[in-house]
Amino acid sequence: MKEQKLTTENYKGTRDFYPEDMRLRNYLFSVMKDVARSYGYEEYDGPMVESLDLYRAKTGEEIVGKQIYNFIDKGDREVAIRPEMTPTVARMVAKKLRDLPRPIRWFSIPNLWRYEQPGHGRLREHWQLNVDMFGVTSGRAELEILSLACDILFAFGAPRNSFKVTISHRSLLDEFLLDGLKVNPNQAHEVSKILDKKNKITEDEYTALVSKTIPDDSTAVSKINLFLAATTETLGQIPGIKEETRKTIQTLFEELKTIGLEDIVYFDPSVVRGFDYYTGFIFEIFDTSPQNKRSLYGGGRYDNLIGLFSNEELSGIGFGLGDVTLQNFLTAHNLLPNFVNDSTVYIPLLDESSFAENHNFARELRKEKIAVEVSLLSQKMGKQLSYAEKKGYRWILLRGEDEIKAGTVTLKDMATRNQWTSSFSEALQKIKEELSK
Amino acid sequence: MKEQKLTTENYKGTRDFYPEDMRLRNYLFSVMKDVARSYGYEEYDGPMVESLDLYRAKTGEEIVGKQIYNFIDKGDREVAIRPEMTPTVARMVAKKLRDLPRPIRWFSIPNLWRYEQPGHGRLREHWQLNVDMFGVTSGRAELEILSLACDILFAFGAPRNSFKVTISHRSLLDEFLLDGLKVNPNQAHEVSKILDKKNKITEDEYTALVSKTIPDDSTAVSKINLFLAATTETLGQIPGIKEETRKTIQTLFEELKTIGLEDIVYFDPSVVRGFDYYTGFIFEIFDTSPQNKRSLYGGGRYDNLIGLFSNEELSGIGFGLGDVTLQNFLTAHNLLPNFVNDSTVYIPLLDESSFAENHNFARELRKEKIAVEVSLLSQKMGKQLSYAEKKGYRWILLRGEDEIKAGTVTLKDMATRNQWTSSFSEALQKIKEELSK
Repeated sequence: MKEQKLTTENYKGTRDFYPEDMRLRNYLFSVMKDVARSYGYEEYDGPMVESLDLYRAKTGEEIVGKQIYNFIDKGDREVAIRPEMTPTVARMVAKKLRDLPRPIRWFSIPNLWRYEQPGHGRLREHWQLNVDMFGVTSGRAELEILSLACDILFAFGAPRNSFKVTISHRSLLDEFLLDGLKVNPNQAHEVSKILDKKNKITEDEYTALVSKTIPDDSTAVSKINLFLAATTETLGQIPGIKEETRKTIQTLFEELKTIGLEDIVYFDPSVVRGFDYYTGFIFEIFDTSPQNKRSLYGGGRYDNLIGLFSNEELSGIGFGLGDVTLQNFLTAHNLLPNFVNDSTVYIPLLDESSFAENHNFARELRKEKIAVEVSLLSQKMGKQLSYAEKKGYRWILLRGEDEIKAGTVTLKDMATRNQWTSSFSEALQKIKEELSK
Repeated sequence: MKEQKLTTENYKGTRDFYPEDMRLRNYLFSVMKDVARSYGYEEYDGPMVESLDLYRAKTGEEIVGKQIYNFIDKGDREVAIRPEMTPTVARMVAKKLRDLPRPIRWFSIPNLWRYEQPGHGRLREHWQLNVDMFGVTSGRAELEILSLACDILFAFGAPRNSFKVTISHRSLLDEFLLDGLKVNPNQAHEVSKILDKKNKITEDEYTALVSKTIPDDSTAVSKINLFLAATTETLGQIPGIKEETRKTIQTLFEELKTIGLEDIVYFDPSVVRGFDYYTGFIFEIFDTSPQNKRSLYGGGRYDNLIGLFSNEELSGIGFGLGDVTLQNFLTAHNLLPNFVNDSTVYIPLLDESSFAENHNFARELRKEKIAVEVSLLSQKMGKQLSYAEKKGYRWILLRGEDEIKAGTVTLKDMATRNQWTSSFSEALQKIKEELSK
């Protein structure tokens, strides 16, 4: 009877990171971390599993209802694998609210889980840079967050015209729908959801959905379209918009000029963002290339999250940037470098008796922070050379019969095929010199 | 009515990593990664969730029965949050078995989940360095794995006498129990489990458990004790032990002398290891300090894991080192450095009109890879200084009324309180010089 083998497939919607994939992931993470740190943000992390209650309060209903990985633990607690990081960071800030010096500037790159149909840029497990600031209500927080969000793409080499930032304010749409268009809150909520997916449906579908949601106002679609076409200058003419909200947006755009982002940022009243917790400024960053039109990432200001845990409120602002969408953007714009194995020296085993000596050479090299692979199997020279080549080693350090007799080693540069025979300590010196070039 | 607040507590048995905790975690990870890379090991990762079947085959029964985080996903699949990494790495190797150049040397630092009663060194979520090699059956793989495992502790500054490595071979106990003591396989399995927890129970409890398991041999306890007292030299006198197994162990100890580990490694037939997949060499590393006697980490050789997925077999060998046990060890031996915020320059806002200029200075500094926090709120000098001090900034760069008039900046060293007034570009130069020292 043939034995049943286990599948080698990974769970649907996830990725296996082989060393070449991991080098890419480490590169993405290190650029993101460097930029966040360069703004004085400090890294944090929370647990992969949280109480389900944490997400019920403010995460969007579609995520908690259909997309969350929730289950009952062996102690009968309702828990979930985190679908997003903002509830965790708010919980952590609330827990030490009195002790943390403000403003609080934090970042993290957690893995997040959603039960989704895997597709382009959408997986069940992905990593997401989260950058958040707490304790600054001034619009300067918006400036810093936008500057940091753009600097990440610039740090990857993105040209200025490769992306654009669309900005709105969460209150604009509510004020227009409730006080301008005078629909009820349920209708307003439905229209928000329609606008959030407007880019993914046809114009006809959009019109049909709006008309179905607001059946008693035949001019609703055209009024909404007027609102969507508003600029920061014409915002005053839109019915329902409060003076304060209009001024907040106009001031933000004035100040964006002073920090040199005015060519990248656009006012766009159709920006919605899927999470229920945003209360003010919201933004989305779009790839400008026609083949990749979806939102790359976004964020906004949330005033009422800390208050879920505490009697004190503390305004937060932040964004999340997923690794899959980032990688798609960098690929589309040809911005990914070629990654090579960072291994340095390979020591083949040509004679069984050399192993202990080779191991000692490796130890000396490792003391100098030089990575070394020592061959464990004595094999013919040709086979070992081809292995070293396949693994991308820069040098091989070998001891054949002649070297053993003479007490020397031969260092071979795999790129130039030049080689030098010398004492081990001279070879070590040469490697150090070449590496410091 | 008072609103019910959400708890700020993290899920039981997990940790919130605040920036100071994250600095420690990043330090532990970076030292472990550096050592693994210095031996030519490449980093990989797999998904957090795997099919439950992956663990049913070979992970120990206690883990799969009681400790695993398993659940049914929304598509009716039986899945689990990974309790250990070895099944994942075996699956990944099996998937690309023909393409991967051998030997395969890989490492990863996954987070792992077990439903346990949290206690000293035991949490529900922990991170674990996993180092594995595939494709080398020679005992030199054992030498390299042991050398690497010890080098990790040395890299943290551990003295040679702070830990010891105990070594055995999985076959020894089986051969002794089945062929020497002539118990049946069920009894052998029970005795293995008793020996695995021998350190945690009293001598009387141990004797009672063994007598209960083997009721028809009143000399069983003393025979087992003789086996446990065996040395590599006296192993030949133990009934049941095969010549081949004895030689494998003796050769390993001979070779350990040639790579200079003979003062740290000890033969100990009581080493069991909890996982069902080990087939050969097994080891555990113990803290030698009396207050922390439990096993720090361990590993071994497993010959039959790749065969679960493939018709080809490929021998694997590796170990896992958990972050909690490592941290406890380093704390007990006073080996943890003091961590400080790595932030560099703080630019206070003394005058509202300076913000855009400050932001531009920060941009110039960030271009030179210097981390800068820009104040967003104009506050009195004293308050800003005390904030910079609390956050551990090395310099502050400020522009008061005089500097604004003169077009200069003042750079203040927070440690020495020295300060220099100069042009911005001279200040930038000074910071770069100081940082490169």
